[in-house]
Amino acid sequence: MLPQPVKKIGKQTLQFTQPPVIFSMSSIVGPMEGKGPYGKAFDYVLEDTLFGEKSWEKAESKMLREAIKRALLKVNLEAKDIDFMFAGDLLNQIVAANFAAREINIPFLGLYGACSTMVEGLALGAVMIDVGSAHRVAVGASSHHNTAERQYRMPTEQGAQRVLWGQWTVTGAGGVLLVKEGSGPVITHCTVGQVIDLGIKDANDMGSCMAPAAADTIIRHFQDLGRQPSDYDLILSGDLGSVGLNITKELLGFEGYDVKNNMTDSGVMIYHPDQDTHAGGSGCGCISVMLCGPILRRMAEGLYKRILAVGTGALLSPISTQQGESVPAIAHAVVIEARP
Amino acid sequence: MLPQPVKKIGKQTLQFTQPPVIFSMSSIVGPMEGKGPYGKAFDYVLEDTLFGEKSWEKAESKMLREAIKRALLKVNLEAKDIDFMFAGDLLNQIVAANFAAREINIPFLGLYGACSTMVEGLALGAVMIDVGSAHRVAVGASSHHNTAERQYRMPTEQGAQRVLWGQWTVTGAGGVLLVKEGSGPVITHCTVGQVIDLGIKDANDMGSCMAPAAADTIIRHFQDLGRQPSDYDLILSGDLGSVGLNITKELLGFEGYDVKNNMTDSGVMIYHPDQDTHAGGSGCGCISVMLCGPILRRMAEGLYKRILAVGTGALLSPISTQQGESVPAIAHAVVIEARP
Repeated sequence: MLPQPVKKIGKQTLQFTQPPVIFSMSSIVGPMEGKGPYGKAFDYVLEDTLFGEKSWEKAESKMLREAIKRALLKVNLEAKDIDFMFAGDLLNQIVAANFAAREINIPFLGLYGACSTMVEGLALGAVMIDVGSAHRVAVGASSHHNTAERQYRMPTEQGAQRVLWGQWTVTGAGGVLLVKEGSGPVITHCTVGQVIDLGIKDANDMGSCMAPAAADTIIRHFQDLGRQPSDYDLILSGDLGSVGLNITKELLGFEGYDVKNNMTDSGVMIYHPDQDTHAGGSGCGCISVMLCGPILRRMAEGLYKRILAVGTGALLSPISTQQGESVPAIAHAVVIEARP
Repeated sequence: MLPQPVKKIGKQTLQFTQPPVIFSMSSIVGPMEGKGPYGKAFDYVLEDTLFGEKSWEKAESKMLREAIKRALLKVNLEAKDIDFMFAGDLLNQIVAANFAAREINIPFLGLYGACSTMVEGLALGAVMIDVGSAHRVAVGASSHHNTAERQYRMPTEQGAQRVLWGQWTVTGAGGVLLVKEGSGPVITHCTVGQVIDLGIKDANDMGSCMAPAAADTIIRHFQDLGRQPSDYDLILSGDLGSVGLNITKELLGFEGYDVKNNMTDSGVMIYHPDQDTHAGGSGCGCISVMLCGPILRRMAEGLYKRILAVGTGALLSPISTQQGESVPAIAHAVVIEARP
């Protein structure tokens, strides 16, 4: 039997023997995210939410396409140099990703993990690279405030009042290029989550829905690897928002994991408190742009040596809610380490 | 450097060095599919389209859950014995798969490849097994006529007249268990498709939309491996229907590949001509149940030694169509070989 480059450790975690390199990344955000505390850390801030297109859906697809193309451009690569592309988004039938892939011409594998999609893609992309299936893999995910609002809740033109525990879908897209050999931080492990549903039916309270899934995956990750929170400079969740982040910290505390000092959430970080987003940001784009923007920049500056990025997804649809279902959720995690 | 179990051949094809085994499979279909020419080859035929549930969406999710559970039961395995599960469906936010995964408790990776989802899952599952990331992977996909009609077209209660080149979404779900070691046919290769869009805007004419993608992936597959159609006992596409199958055969003929005698389509096979489905079956469930039912049974009986299964997906959404977009499509292929 051949030696195996990928090693499964414990119940849900994979360890990469030749850790794939995050060789390039790009982030595009909307005007509101550009005015947030990390506005200057993103590659490109849209002047308006339409990005020169006739609809928000087309604008979202263009953001995703541009994020992936810019990640390649930065390292002088083209689509033909890339083996596979993983991407997804929140739109019905992931049309932002499908239409982006139409313009890019890379063999394409569509994903749906709600707001965990970017991390799901990084995990699967890392598997493909580590085992030699691919030398270079592109990964991308996007969301758009106006497309998500009209699909999941109310058209934004209606000006409906939002609940205080609601979150604001981030307008943004991130693109990552993973390679076999090169300089940059590496993905050393991934932990694939299970679907968890503790019965919450308020589709506006996504933080509470996702917190148990986030805690479950983080606990599994620690157990599988025999690690502690202190092994990470930062534990970054995707879009738990302020409500979900607090619940997750509490759930982890019950199990003896103290993350008070080193865990935060992309949705909590991305907006100023006075931007009136209530519980913070959400959407596939949330962790995508925070990772591809400020977080990996800080890692390059030496601020973080090892982080745990935890994508969190609420796996509902408007129809499942209308049919009385509660909201299942999932979280996937990847470990990213700085390499000298 | 460690030897690599998976080898990329040509532009889009992966060759598995330790080909994953299709150790078990299960198929569930609706009443209409049960009355079709292969009705007796499926494991379970529903008495009605609600399957004891209160909505068709819940029925679809139950079908998918049961198909995966039955595939495990047949070989005396339980969810806890399975490393990962890949699944998807056509519903917005793939809720059939998400809610199935909620009940099954296997680390879950959600996919969206429209009707190519089953083959996308088999390809990714095979990668995970071949490289040692997993010993056992479950793969599933589903569709339901009534959920698809009301989401993509018209509610069935309305009794709208269907166009003659339209297809009938299959009510059905397939579940496959891939393992590292065991008896059964093996997956030797996969070819990952690119998104192809030749500009057709008639969302009812999915066969014409998908044919160029199917032909592209099949041609890439032949080119990557230096193979010919005669290397396969059967080339089985997913849901091109009669219109799309004929176009695909013609496109392959233009490039010098004669598939007249050994290519057919799951959507053409699944219904009797007098079942009034017009151009045939479609949906994620179409190739899923045909593979997990009659086709792999025939392989077990020695009728086929090597087949090429080509999942085909139309990557549209009702909104992309309303916004004037044409219909992009994709096709993924896996090679399945009988093992003595």
